[in-house]
Amino acid sequence: MATANQSFSQILLGRPLETAAAPHQAIGKVPALAVFASDALSSVAYATEEILVILALAGAAYFTLSIPIAIAISVLLIVLTISYRQTIFAYPGGGGAYIVARDNLGELPAQTAGAALLTDYILTVAVSISSGVAQITSAFPTLYPYRVEVAIGLILFMTVINLRGVKESSSAFAVPTYFFLGMAFLMLIVGAFRWATGTLPQVSSVEMVADSLQPLTLFIILRAFSSGCTALTGVEAISNGITAFKEPRSRNAASTMLAMSGVLMTLFIGITLLARAVHAQPSEAETVISQIARTVYGGGIFYLITLISTTVILIMAANTSFADFPRLAALHAGDGFLPRQLTFRGSRLVFSWGIALLAGMASLLVIIFQASVSALIPLYAIGVFLSFTLSQTGMVVRWQKVSKMQPGEEIEVHGAIMRYDSQWRWKQIVNAVGAVMTFVVMIVFAVTKFRDGAWIVIVLTPALVWSFFRVHHHYKSVASELSLAGESKPIAARPLKTLVLIDNLHAASIRALNFTMSLGESWTAVHISIDPDRTADLQRKWAARMGDTPLVVLQSPYRSLTEPLQTYVQQLRQESPNAYIHIVLGSLTTESYWQQALHRNSTLAFRMAFRQMEGVAVTSIPFQLHNLLSEN
Amino acid sequence: MATANQSFSQILLGRPLETAAAPHQAIGKVPALAVFASDALSSVAYATEEILVILALAGAAYFTLSIPIAIAISVLLIVLTISYRQTIFAYPGGGGAYIVARDNLGELPAQTAGAALLTDYILTVAVSISSGVAQITSAFPTLYPYRVEVAIGLILFMTVINLRGVKESSSAFAVPTYFFLGMAFLMLIVGAFRWATGTLPQVSSVEMVADSLQPLTLFIILRAFSSGCTALTGVEAISNGITAFKEPRSRNAASTMLAMSGVLMTLFIGITLLARAVHAQPSEAETVISQIARTVYGGGIFYLITLISTTVILIMAANTSFADFPRLAALHAGDGFLPRQLTFRGSRLVFSWGIALLAGMASLLVIIFQASVSALIPLYAIGVFLSFTLSQTGMVVRWQKVSKMQPGEEIEVHGAIMRYDSQWRWKQIVNAVGAVMTFVVMIVFAVTKFRDGAWIVIVLTPALVWSFFRVHHHYKSVASELSLAGESKPIAARPLKTLVLIDNLHAASIRALNFTMSLGESWTAVHISIDPDRTADLQRKWAARMGDTPLVVLQSPYRSLTEPLQTYVQQLRQESPNAYIHIVLGSLTTESYWQQALHRNSTLAFRMAFRQMEGVAVTSIPFQLHNLLSEN
Repeated sequence: MATANQSFSQILLGRPLETAAAPHQAIGKVPALAVFASDALSSVAYATEEILVILALAGAAYFTLSIPIAIAISVLLIVLTISYRQTIFAYPGGGGAYIVARDNLGELPAQTAGAALLTDYILTVAVSISSGVAQITSAFPTLYPYRVEVAIGLILFMTVINLRGVKESSSAFAVPTYFFLGMAFLMLIVGAFRWATGTLPQVSSVEMVADSLQPLTLFIILRAFSSGCTALTGVEAISNGITAFKEPRSRNAASTMLAMSGVLMTLFIGITLLARAVHAQPSEAETVISQIARTVYGGGIFYLITLISTTVILIMAANTSFADFPRLAALHAGDGFLPRQLTFRGSRLVFSWGIALLAGMASLLVIIFQASVSALIPLYAIGVFLSFTLSQTGMVVRWQKVSKMQPGEEIEVHGAIMRYDSQWRWKQIVNAVGAVMTFVVMIVFAVTKFRDGAWIVIVLTPALVWSFFRVHHHYKSVASELSLAGESKPIAARPLKTLVLIDNLHAASIRALNFTMSLGESWTAVHISIDPDRTADLQRKWAARMGDTPLVVLQSPYRSLTEPLQTYVQQLRQESPNAYIHIVLGSLTTESYWQQALHRNSTLAFRMAFRQMEGVAVTSIPFQLHNLLSEN
Repeated sequence: MATANQSFSQILLGRPLETAAAPHQAIGKVPALAVFASDALSSVAYATEEILVILALAGAAYFTLSIPIAIAISVLLIVLTISYRQTIFAYPGGGGAYIVARDNLGELPAQTAGAALLTDYILTVAVSISSGVAQITSAFPTLYPYRVEVAIGLILFMTVINLRGVKESSSAFAVPTYFFLGMAFLMLIVGAFRWATGTLPQVSSVEMVADSLQPLTLFIILRAFSSGCTALTGVEAISNGITAFKEPRSRNAASTMLAMSGVLMTLFIGITLLARAVHAQPSEAETVISQIARTVYGGGIFYLITLISTTVILIMAANTSFADFPRLAALHAGDGFLPRQLTFRGSRLVFSWGIALLAGMASLLVIIFQASVSALIPLYAIGVFLSFTLSQTGMVVRWQKVSKMQPGEEIEVHGAIMRYDSQWRWKQIVNAVGAVMTFVVMIVFAVTKFRDGAWIVIVLTPALVWSFFRVHHHYKSVASELSLAGESKPIAARPLKTLVLIDNLHAASIRALNFTMSLGESWTAVHISIDPDRTADLQRKWAARMGDTPLVVLQSPYRSLTEPLQTYVQQLRQESPNAYIHIVLGSLTTESYWQQALHRNSTLAFRMAFRQMEGVAVTSIPFQLHNLLSEN
């Protein structure tokens, strides 16, 4: 079985990779934009639509409000870009929110930022895949009833791809990203041209999602603004990945960030304007992007290619989470805040546990929310904005530290070099503005989306942080208990009592006896008597085979396998408190699991029974049943 | 955790019972009727209704046909009773279909009978509980939407009761059974009196289940007959349990069987007649019994008491399966056709695995068929009639053997004494008639109910029989492989190579080292190097603490924990093919499962890696982390 599994997993995942094979290669600005921007750019596929979904509550008459809202979000993007530029220069080794918060604010804000980011990576997968599937079902409405299945299928596919290990070749990213950018800009240009020449038709035959109309309130406008802010998710990606850039790293990363923000802003405002021009209607059946493309091109091959490019960029966006989540989870685990297993690299050098965890959680979300982007959006982005706020606040604190340094002085903190900067006050103000604005947006988001699902994240994030610290406390106390604290006295052998359990006298128990004899120490054979007839039978066989060698019989009046032995071992320990008790028993090993299930497999029961007893070890001697092979 | 669980299970199930406490007490005829007849008698609660459900397909005009159908079924009952009387006298030690088939027909028919009976015990629980719940929801229609939950609740309740061990005190059976009989006969008498005096009203306000009418065909009449045959399930119970009777056992059992059949026939025909007289309508909302009682008594306390007594007898009927299924499964398991675990008696002397299996399967059926008796009926009874046929055929073969004996000669087969009987030919004819009639009914049942669900049983039964033989083959080949075949040469100690795995140098690995030293043989310390930095660190610590003692470092370029060690062990085995390899490693034991999940728990990985390697044993030395207690 094990062999069959192994070869199956090798077919699925490829041959194992050596640790030394981990690649380190720097990339230029043009491919870097593709690698880091897919998450941010793909959000234009749904951000405009989500604004319209909320405005629809007050009626289609207010759809024009989407334009000022998009402009307000763009202003926020400009502030964020300037703030993050400073982070990029301050942390050339990579300045994710977790690291910036840990260096400047302490453990609690750092863990909070981490929890928020991990949650949001999961949501990025769920939202991007759901949106990608929505593009597919816009073009092929017959697939709509199977949207959950299609989404889960895509997540599984990406899981396998990532367990194989995506070779982060920049071309794999560059082609779909620039393909999407090309198609998106083409759509904007053709649309603008047809609008200017008065030949742009309006969307037809789309049923809008709206039940009873509510009056337009500030609350609704803020809700629409919050929904649109999902356009900003992913803009922090470049600051996390500065080390991937060619030298001068920070400068290249900063100009890539600038380019990304410019493209993002243009696309977002352009799509919002065009949606207005064609009178796009938010709808479960067809995405706004599909409506625009269909109207601009009048259907046909260009429409289809536009949708395909959008779907592909959304899948690429989900894929960035498959790279980032396991890496961040491993960082947390390495610091002892998440289970250590998350730091293990699998046979293909990837963090397999992290990938599996991400895929499992994202699939769960897709199933619960039925692959609906609008249902997922209230959970999304709140974590991103929390981490924005913490990261910018960390920068503010950092500038305060910088201000106390001497010109020319350099301090290294966790690999990031801190230098005096005469401009510190201005830069601090920039980051402070960023921190305040993102904080305000987060509060607006939390309040306006609270009932729609934001409460889940608001409850979950502190719960996660609490668990992180509980895990950390556990590892710390284990470490202190395992610590030898400089103790170095020689290790003295202790007395040993060996027991061999005899259930019946057959080839497997003979092997256990043989092993026990081979240990070369004295030993005692013990039988636990549940059925008096079987015991009498064994005693007869024992005498015939083993002569005078005594066989201790422990009565088990309540038919428990382990309790009489526990009592016996307790007695032995009282007699010689310093001794190790070594319990040897035979066990049968079959080739297949259904066969194994036909046997008692009592080894586990004994191991569990003695796991809390100090100095007691249980050894099972497997006896391989080979002739059963033919049964398969 | 283990302790907490144990005390919880003791609260739920009671204190453990000694093996010697198993009771053996003989009972008289009057309580015996109660103990063995609840299954058979309770079926009158649904048999009439199920006939009407099928006749309704052709229209209410044909409901009068239920009377000749009930009479035909009663004729079948008479034949069965006479046939089973003979089985009772032939097998005073208990003559269940499994035993009669095994003695006279061979393994395959015996296993088939067993598979059929086990399936039907599961269905008895599902049908009886569903019918009981239908009585409850007839009286309290608000409970109808929760019928599945109520049914599962009842099954869970019975599971706990039976895991505690039902003390088969006859009064616990006698009270509800005779209470039901009293209420049922009272209803018949009052109903007959009101009918004779012309004061019997007709059922009102019941909506009949019928969509489009079909013409009345022979097929529909046979289907109705098949449905009604469920009244005969359970009549074999007395022949299984003859040992429980006072001496003269067979005579007492036979007259009890006669009494039971008489009561069953009277009740079944009486209820069918009364159902016709009050114009009862088959309905999902109200059972026929409820309609009759409501009409006869005009509602009120007598109506309610009648329904309660019916519900209780149905639950008692389900309870007989909880006694019979685990016993029969243990019989199969003892003969090696089902997993041995089914023969283990739990702390309360009951076959816990069998009870759990029955409860699980019955619950599954109740959930799948939404606690609908009419939906479950097509699966039911086919197994019973198959086992009737096999048992009667077995008797026919037995009489043939008897005919060849000398007068006065006695042969013992499996505890049943076979004597010459001059009446053998007549008796053989009786059993042959029984065999043929039950076989015909089974075929009618299979054909007429095939599409409604009988196909499931028709597919499942051979599959079960096949698995039984596969299990049997497995146990036989294991036994032959384990057999020492009279070998008795002295057991010679073999050379031993002890390896101790060192992952890091801390208290737990020091304990593993200490245990290894205490074994008193030479040993080798081995480290599997995944991370070069950690290995260098360990080597430094090792040198400081252990001086010149060598530490073998196995490189693991693919980060596998077990593969380098497997290769190393293979080398050792090639060097000394006769040696045992003993691998010792430390492991951490925490108090709670969430803490345990935070550790690598590599013991299992090593044990799995070496389970197929002959002569390799893995011992983990647990290190108990006690100070973590305070975390809980």
